[in-house]
Amino acid sequence: MSDETMTDAPSVLVCWTTVSEQEQARAIAQALLERRVAACVQIDAPIESHYCWDGRVCCETEVRLVIKTSVGQAARLKETLRALHPYEVPQIVMLRSVDVDREYARWVDEQTG
Amino acid sequence: MSDETMTDAPSVLVCWTTVSEQEQARAIAQALLERRVAACVQIDAPIESHYCWDGRVCCETEVRLVIKTSVGQAARLKETLRALHPYEVPQIVMLRSVDVDREYARWVDEQTG
Amino acid sequence: MSDETMTDAPSVLVCWTTVSEQEQARAIAQALLERRVAACVQIDAPIESHYCWDGRVCCETEVRLVIKTSVGQAARLKETLRALHPYEVPQIVMLRSVDVDREYARWVDEQTG
Repeated sequence: MSDETMTDAPSVLVCWTTVSEQEQARAIAQALLERRVAACVQIDAPIESHYCWDGRVCCETEVRLVIKTSVGQAARLKETLRALHPYEVPQIVMLRSVDVDREYARWVDEQTG
Repeated sequence: MSDETMTDAPSVLVCWTTVSEQEQARAIAQALLERRVAACVQIDAPIESHYCWDGRVCCETEVRLVIKTSVGQAARLKETLRALHPYEVPQIVMLRSVDVDREYARWVDEQTG
Repeated sequence: MSDETMTDAPSVLVCWTTVSEQEQARAIAQALLERRVAACVQIDAPIESHYCWDGRVCCETEVRLVIKTSVGQAARLKETLRALHPYEVPQIVMLRSVDVDREYARWVDEQTG
């Protein structure tokens, strides 16, 4: 894949966030879909999150959401997630695909906005 | 990491797709590896996929495949996945690394093509 | 999201690696956090890794670490992971976000370096 083909291929955004409870994750997924801010939301099996707090390494069980949306919805997704999220400083990290199945990309566009 | 070092670092492609059954995921993994279209295929623990269908929010258990291949195999991977995939419109989303362990990148290249 | 807004948005690095045991994953997570090479490390539920070895398709259970750090820590993270990792050729794959919650990005910066 040359760099040129990559930049003119259709693309979607993949966004990761985490919450502490399965029910929180499902409520956020439902809200994102109903507001057409996301095309689909995957909820992963529980994960262990390790981080430092006050100089000590802590570990908590969390639930990860993997959200797919169109590139044009980035700002709206960030704002909506911020409003819905139970954390004060939520992990909201977005990556952009370099290539994607064309019909899938079209479906994502049709589901959002 | 400056933007320059990132663009001349070796890179690999990470591709996500999902199917509904573990056995489908294993069959696709086997086929991708035998055809040298992928260097490795990881099958995640089952996930919940939430999406809208006919205006209603649906939820299904799915199995995610995380596929690593060389950048040159992008088109072939998309075509092969399309041919193998049980869905009419499969999620095939590819991201490109900005940095990768050099020996790992070399191994991915040697395993594909 | 235009390409301009994406390039000047704050960004973080997401790094994937895998090991064969949960305790190895926890030890690596602890070391990365204590050395301030990572802001947080997520350990996923066990995955199946399929790959070819000597022409045969093999399958092993592995544990995936998903590491978040600041862009400036890329080289240090790679070196540290290399030194800590039990594999001869570890999968160390880094992707860069195109957009991220500003306060989260600031937190990642404050936790690393």
